[in-house]
Amino acid sequence: MARSTLYQQVASELRRAIYSGDLGPGDQLPTEADLMHSHGVSRNTVRLALGELVNEGLVTRTPRRGTVVRDRRPLLMYPQRELEPQSEGGPREAFAYAVSHEGRLPGQVIEVSIVAPPEDVAIRLELADDGLAVVRKRLRFVDGQPYNTNDSYFPLSLVAGSEIARPGDIMRGANRVLDELGHPQVRIVDDISARMPTPAEAQRLMLEPGTPVVVYIRVGYDPDDLPVRVAVSVLPADKHLIRYELTRR
Amino acid sequence: MARSTLYQQVASELRRAIYSGDLGPGDQLPTEADLMHSHGVSRNTVRLALGELVNEGLVTRTPRRGTVVRDRRPLLMYPQRELEPQSEGGPREAFAYAVSHEGRLPGQVIEVSIVAPPEDVAIRLELADDGLAVVRKRLRFVDGQPYNTNDSYFPLSLVAGSEIARPGDIMRGANRVLDELGHPQVRIVDDISARMPTPAEAQRLMLEPGTPVVVYIRVGYDPDDLPVRVAVSVLPADKHLIRYELTRR
Repeated sequence: MARSTLYQQVASELRRAIYSGDLGPGDQLPTEADLMHSHGVSRNTVRLALGELVNEGLVTRTPRRGTVVRDRRPLLMYPQRELEPQSEGGPREAFAYAVSHEGRLPGQVIEVSIVAPPEDVAIRLELADDGLAVVRKRLRFVDGQPYNTNDSYFPLSLVAGSEIARPGDIMRGANRVLDELGHPQVRIVDDISARMPTPAEAQRLMLEPGTPVVVYIRVGYDPDDLPVRVAVSVLPADKHLIRYELTRR
Repeated sequence: MARSTLYQQVASELRRAIYSGDLGPGDQLPTEADLMHSHGVSRNTVRLALGELVNEGLVTRTPRRGTVVRDRRPLLMYPQRELEPQSEGGPREAFAYAVSHEGRLPGQVIEVSIVAPPEDVAIRLELADDGLAVVRKRLRFVDGQPYNTNDSYFPLSLVAGSEIARPGDIMRGANRVLDELGHPQVRIVDDISARMPTPAEAQRLMLEPGTPVVVYIRVGYDPDDLPVRVAVSVLPADKHLIRYELTRR
């Protein structure tokens, strides 16, 4: 157990330096040789300590740059903004708004298809056993880097023939189309949880090891309390912060 | 790369069985020998596949019971409930309410102390450089198992001499005491993010490997927009789901 204690001590000192800000985002940690010398420990102990920090998502290790503190400044998401009356000409969508607001460049690729949705989505949409949905799958980018995914499902029976079921972006937003179809979303239920990514998600979002994802699922109900949209967002945890503002009645 | 493809195939089939519900919480996966035989692969390939599922938090491996699907039914938290008018005699607190509601037994240990709070808390509380806070640290239990932590910080200058600064539980809740001190929380900002746990958190909350935590930080402001409470909750991601309900204006 002596070795375990030793590497944890080294990890702990480095962690403190990161949390205190002595080592900021982008800063290089001392080299393995420096750490061996300053702590009087073996290379193996140093590597165990650094491995621990990688697993916690605090640093990344690359052959060229060594060990570097990760940039943990997250994108601030305001899920309530989607419900506010839209200003003419402004960004129609919470993600694009948040990114533009920070002076960064939002982007997305969108794929539209008709599917038998995953079971948890089918349940939320209250679909019959063989019920189909239109899904609009988006991979979103910030400054050209993959950032998160957002898959919105709509009952096919509701949106067939509308713009929602056709490929490509909808300039005024899918929510406006639902309004026009007579199914405005007047009540919203947001479920937020987190987990480790699947291998496919890790690859698609170019996640580094030890990065969990926040899964944020929004269900929109029309005035008859019929679920008309299920939006599943997968948000890499190191890059996103979700904020709600509430007022006491 | 052939081996990588092979173990990912095995992992993928098991993952599908879990997501589809064919393998439910508490179910044992086939033994290593069975998986080697049914997939025609080596023991090493099987172990790589199972390791992947452990990392994703889908299964646990113990020498005695083998590989078992984790119980992923989370505790449903409603952060908005704390703001509603309190019914007499009902549970005063969102956590106790949610747990009791599921027929499970809530519990907590509480430690009260006066501290120089961590920098991010001091900033949120708008404390001066040498400003002190009263912190009420809670470790919460469900059916006797450690479940999450909730640390609430209050400016010492505001709560000195009140029940908040004294050890032990406050039967009517700390929020009620703030009301009585003339600092009701009328505006709330909730920040939600996720990360891997620190080693201390993993130990305190008895987390299994590959379990991220949701960090949920609530700041309460009084009518003069003065921050009067910062509550930091650390919620193991496999055991919690946060739900907000919103109405469109």
